Amino acid sequence: MSVGLLIITHNRVGQELLNTARTILGACPLETAHLNVPQDSSPEAMVHRGTELLTRLDSGDGVLILTDAFGATPSNVAVRLGERMGTAVVSGLNLPMLLRVLNYPDLPLAALRDKAYTGGRDGVLLVEPTPAEQDRHHERHR
Amino acid sequence: MSVGLLIITHNRVGQELLNTARTILGACPLETAHLNVPQDSSPEAMVHRGTELLTRLDSGDGVLILTDAFGATPSNVAVRLGERMGTAVVSGLNLPMLLRVLNYPDLPLAALRDKAYTGGRDGVLLVEPTPAEQDRHHERHR
Repeated sequence: MSVGLLIITHNRVGQELLNTARTILGACPLETAHLNVPQDSSPEAMVHRGTELLTRLDSGDGVLILTDAFGATPSNVAVRLGERMGTAVVSGLNLPMLLRVLNYPDLPLAALRDKAYTGGRDGVLLVEPTPAEQDRHHERHR
Repeated sequence: MSVGLLIITHNRVGQELLNTARTILGACPLETAHLNVPQDSSPEAMVHRGTELLTRLDSGDGVLILTDAFGATPSNVAVRLGERMGTAVVSGLNLPMLLRVLNYPDLPLAALRDKAYTGGRDGVLLVEPTPAEQDRHHERHR
């Protein structure tokens, strides 16, 4: 048994991220589902659908819910679903967060939630060109 | 004039995020483009296409490049494009990062890069149910 993973985002963002992570890792070691929230959707209908997905995903170890931006409709749906026992919610979903979570499929819910949080934050980086690249650039433009 | 914005991600992740941000904000105050990098794409072809997009986006104030995960192919393409003068690269793209950037369309490149970084990090949150929600939950399950 392991934690289930429910991804709740605007439009197809979550679905595209899940497909990408699956291809990068060559497998998906957690039971996952995504809930696409269209802009004009009814929050009640989304909570209803999300509850069905939670029930399907929860094999007894709980469900980690990842959502895109705190305060927007998908996150409001996630917060409502997060009232249920055995759930944890992290917002700010990015690809590094998702990859980090899928790299620790055996962790219990609270530890996996913390991995999502640190993975998401650590994944945000200012990317500086390496000195070698700068040299090459200068060489080319001399 | 203002900074241009180039989004480089796996598959349709960036495109879905851009569409979502546009709908949330009701407009897109920066000149933007996205480069979808399919799993089996040639990095050289992607760098070529990215260079064309950079040229189109750069009105003299530079281009901010946002990408999904450091170390993956889209980020490698972003790093190559980031060798060009007047560019800055931030990885770990999430919706809060994008919304933060689009909320400061008049900033110069270095300041906008910093907004992307802090917006992305600040957007990763452990979402705790509010006490009222917990009470409601307990009430319901008593």
